[in-house]
Amino acid sequence: MNLQEARTALVAWQNKMSAYYHAMSAIYYDGDTVAPKGTAENRAHTLGILSEESYKISTSAETLEMLEFLDAHVEELDEKEKRIVYLALKDIKEMKKIPMEEYVEYQQLLVKASDVWHTAKETNDFALFCPVLEKVFATEKHFAELCAPDKDPYDYCLGKYEDGLNKEKCDEFFGALKAKIVPLIKKIGEKEQLSDKCIWGYFSEAAQEKFSYDLMRLMGIDLDHCGLGTTEHPFTTSLGSHHDVRITTNYNTENFASSMYSVIHEGGHALYDLNSADEYAYTLLDGGVSMGIHESQSRFYENLLGRDRAFVETVFPKICEAFPEQMKGYTAEDVYRAINLVQPSLIRTEADEVTYCLHVMVRYELEKRIMSGELAVRDLPAEWNKLYGEYLGVEVPDDKRGVLQDSHWSGGGIGYFPSYALGSAYGAHLLAKMKESVDVEKCLREGDFAPINAWNREHIWKYGCLKKSNDLLRDALGEEFDPSYYTNYLEKKYGELYGLDD
Amino acid sequence: MNLQEARTALVAWQNKMSAYYHAMSAIYYDGDTVAPKGTAENRAHTLGILSEESYKISTSAETLEMLEFLDAHVEELDEKEKRIVYLALKDIKEMKKIPMEEYVEYQQLLVKASDVWHTAKETNDFALFCPVLEKVFATEKHFAELCAPDKDPYDYCLGKYEDGLNKEKCDEFFGALKAKIVPLIKKIGEKEQLSDKCIWGYFSEAAQEKFSYDLMRLMGIDLDHCGLGTTEHPFTTSLGSHHDVRITTNYNTENFASSMYSVIHEGGHALYDLNSADEYAYTLLDGGVSMGIHESQSRFYENLLGRDRAFVETVFPKICEAFPEQMKGYTAEDVYRAINLVQPSLIRTEADEVTYCLHVMVRYELEKRIMSGELAVRDLPAEWNKLYGEYLGVEVPDDKRGVLQDSHWSGGGIGYFPSYALGSAYGAHLLAKMKESVDVEKCLREGDFAPINAWNREHIWKYGCLKKSNDLLRDALGEEFDPSYYTNYLEKKYGELYGLDD
Repeated sequence: MNLQEARTALVAWQNKMSAYYHAMSAIYYDGDTVAPKGTAENRAHTLGILSEESYKISTSAETLEMLEFLDAHVEELDEKEKRIVYLALKDIKEMKKIPMEEYVEYQQLLVKASDVWHTAKETNDFALFCPVLEKVFATEKHFAELCAPDKDPYDYCLGKYEDGLNKEKCDEFFGALKAKIVPLIKKIGEKEQLSDKCIWGYFSEAAQEKFSYDLMRLMGIDLDHCGLGTTEHPFTTSLGSHHDVRITTNYNTENFASSMYSVIHEGGHALYDLNSADEYAYTLLDGGVSMGIHESQSRFYENLLGRDRAFVETVFPKICEAFPEQMKGYTAEDVYRAINLVQPSLIRTEADEVTYCLHVMVRYELEKRIMSGELAVRDLPAEWNKLYGEYLGVEVPDDKRGVLQDSHWSGGGIGYFPSYALGSAYGAHLLAKMKESVDVEKCLREGDFAPINAWNREHIWKYGCLKKSNDLLRDALGEEFDPSYYTNYLEKKYGELYGLDD
Repeated sequence: MNLQEARTALVAWQNKMSAYYHAMSAIYYDGDTVAPKGTAENRAHTLGILSEESYKISTSAETLEMLEFLDAHVEELDEKEKRIVYLALKDIKEMKKIPMEEYVEYQQLLVKASDVWHTAKETNDFALFCPVLEKVFATEKHFAELCAPDKDPYDYCLGKYEDGLNKEKCDEFFGALKAKIVPLIKKIGEKEQLSDKCIWGYFSEAAQEKFSYDLMRLMGIDLDHCGLGTTEHPFTTSLGSHHDVRITTNYNTENFASSMYSVIHEGGHALYDLNSADEYAYTLLDGGVSMGIHESQSRFYENLLGRDRAFVETVFPKICEAFPEQMKGYTAEDVYRAINLVQPSLIRTEADEVTYCLHVMVRYELEKRIMSGELAVRDLPAEWNKLYGEYLGVEVPDDKRGVLQDSHWSGGGIGYFPSYALGSAYGAHLLAKMKESVDVEKCLREGDFAPINAWNREHIWKYGCLKKSNDLLRDALGEEFDPSYYTNYLEKKYGELYGLDD
């Protein structure tokens, strides 16, 4: 093998892997959006075979030989190739530690888990979900032990979603947040509550869908390459490359803000994925680098921009166009106050900015305890409800609105949740940095996302997975990340809204 | 290799092939239903790679060796294995005659062709479609010459959709139809025309969609394993096995009958696919055996049952429930007459039973001439319009409602169209046979499809691809197929409706 052959083989191998991922994502996406109810087993059959094939191609002697040859010639590679070879070897060496049969079985388990979770949530039946969730947690732990025998299993899981993240860093980060947020919530609780009456009523799915497209257009999302679907739990996925991204939402016909902010959140993910450098398509560099950075973008659009007064004023005419009867007599300021009402609640995806991180902390706490063996999966509901009482002061009426609300665990996403809080905090720091060169307020007032998107593209999006997430963030910020930007932002915004300084 | 090993390898190979087909069908289905507009190239990239992989697996020395070993031990195989080995060897030997690069390129061309066709139809721009359609016809001809050098290329194409079909048989069959249908249309034209006023108006997509599910349920389609989507052109497809079937329709908001009969038509296809013997899943025996038999089922439900007076009377309350305002003052008999109005028209899928086969004959005539080199693709629109004048006496106002109306050619389906006419005629003979043991009229009057479906399952569906289509049909009929059942049926039904004997 010479260098040129190895380079060509590297491209061909990545093309092939991207095709398998495209196929598997398309089958998952279909399963979550439009597939008939009784077809999960059929998908599991196919996904088992495809994941076996992709495992074989990934871990073949031929692939490893090619990658190791390139690794031995690393000085002759360009920056992109270096990073690709590094990422590929890291992934493959880990993957090889998991026996193929177990890997395939787990892929099939996840299809089943997703199916069972849907039914369990619909019928409020945790007992139905429990055995399969036990298997998911057990497998995640087992794989963590296989892949990183010297590491704490949950640290390993956290690191999958954000480079270098571990329990120690999470504890510190959440500690810092809690120290500011808990008193803030307390102060807000002592003030007169805002009204959110204007977001409640009846809002048809058809009108909400039309409005969703308005939002996507306003955000500057290229609708020729980004689709919108409906699922039980909103998410974003890419099919094959950043040329085809899908977001999903869930319409609550009683509250238009629920889907509105899901669309803006997922739209933020989509913008990140859609704007990888074009040359990264069908390579390992395509798409977002970590879930922490990903959530920094989604939470940025959802909250820092989407819950800003100027944005709400800009989007208000579109809201009135979508729901003319329901909006009669209300102003943009009413909507602004409604969507910023701070109130400890049950559902994470519908939580306000201030209490949001407490929802994340509950999940983090539970995952940590399960992974350490301190807590059994069957005891999750009781413990969930207890922590919701402690952290948020709310009583959980049923598992549907409790432990069954999120899709992440059924998808094997153990260790994912802290990314949401981390991303929120990254976003606040990024916004401060962006404001040094972009008049964000003016952009929002004029409904012109181009300068905002250009900044994100230039500093975050275009890099795809080229840089490590920590480096990417530090380069964009021009300094080390500092979570106090986030808590300061919350204190300032909600101080004004609730008149805390009065 | 011993027999047991070969048998195991045969199962594994079929599993793998079904997974690739599942993946490719899912990507195609996504592309036709919900994918964003600008993503065809991305799909082509992936489908190119997946079709290359599946080509390699199909035609590998290992696969061939296994199949040839089994073929050499054919006496020791059971009936199913024999048929599987026969079908596999036939397909693979043909496939191997097409160079892999050409095969892959053609798969990618078809993705592009479908994309271009959508735009061309939307913008009424045949010139846009022409170059890619030229390539499709040229490739079909080229492949036919490679696969069957001793055969006429168009005969080869016809045989792909119905075993043993060729131009000679088609000419004879269409000749027999024409001899009866043309005078019938003439006689009908001399009578007072029926009114179809009641099917026209405004019918929202949402109401039509709900009604579509009512129809599917009424037909006895298992909604847990059959989905409904929306596409420019209705079709049916299976994803991976008969456990997951999808039908699509296209809603015309001005005429509810258009989608109604598409749903019943595609529902007939779906019933056939859904009811393969369970053990056939993930084998080459799964699903319908030929397009002729497939269309015999779809056209059976659409017309022989769906346009029957008793069926219309049964479904009328559902129509009124779906469109209460629009149906005010109309009776079931009004709908029955409207959906059986015989009138030469422009659109095949909306044509009445009597003129329908003339639409098919136009396409057959044009394909025949293009494949023989007598007609150039660029001259298709003019020739299409000329033949519509000759056969149906209608003037084609634009290509959108002319040569661009069907999706088949963009999908490479050259030779498919005659299946529709053949299937219609098979269906009429099958109905006569079914009536010997099933009180079809009573079933329709009571909205009970179970006895009808049971007969079809027992005589057609459960066999999947086990029998050759000719044998399957002969066994079901208990005699040789005779097209006069079809023309007799048309003469009797429309003679009564139009009072031709008065």
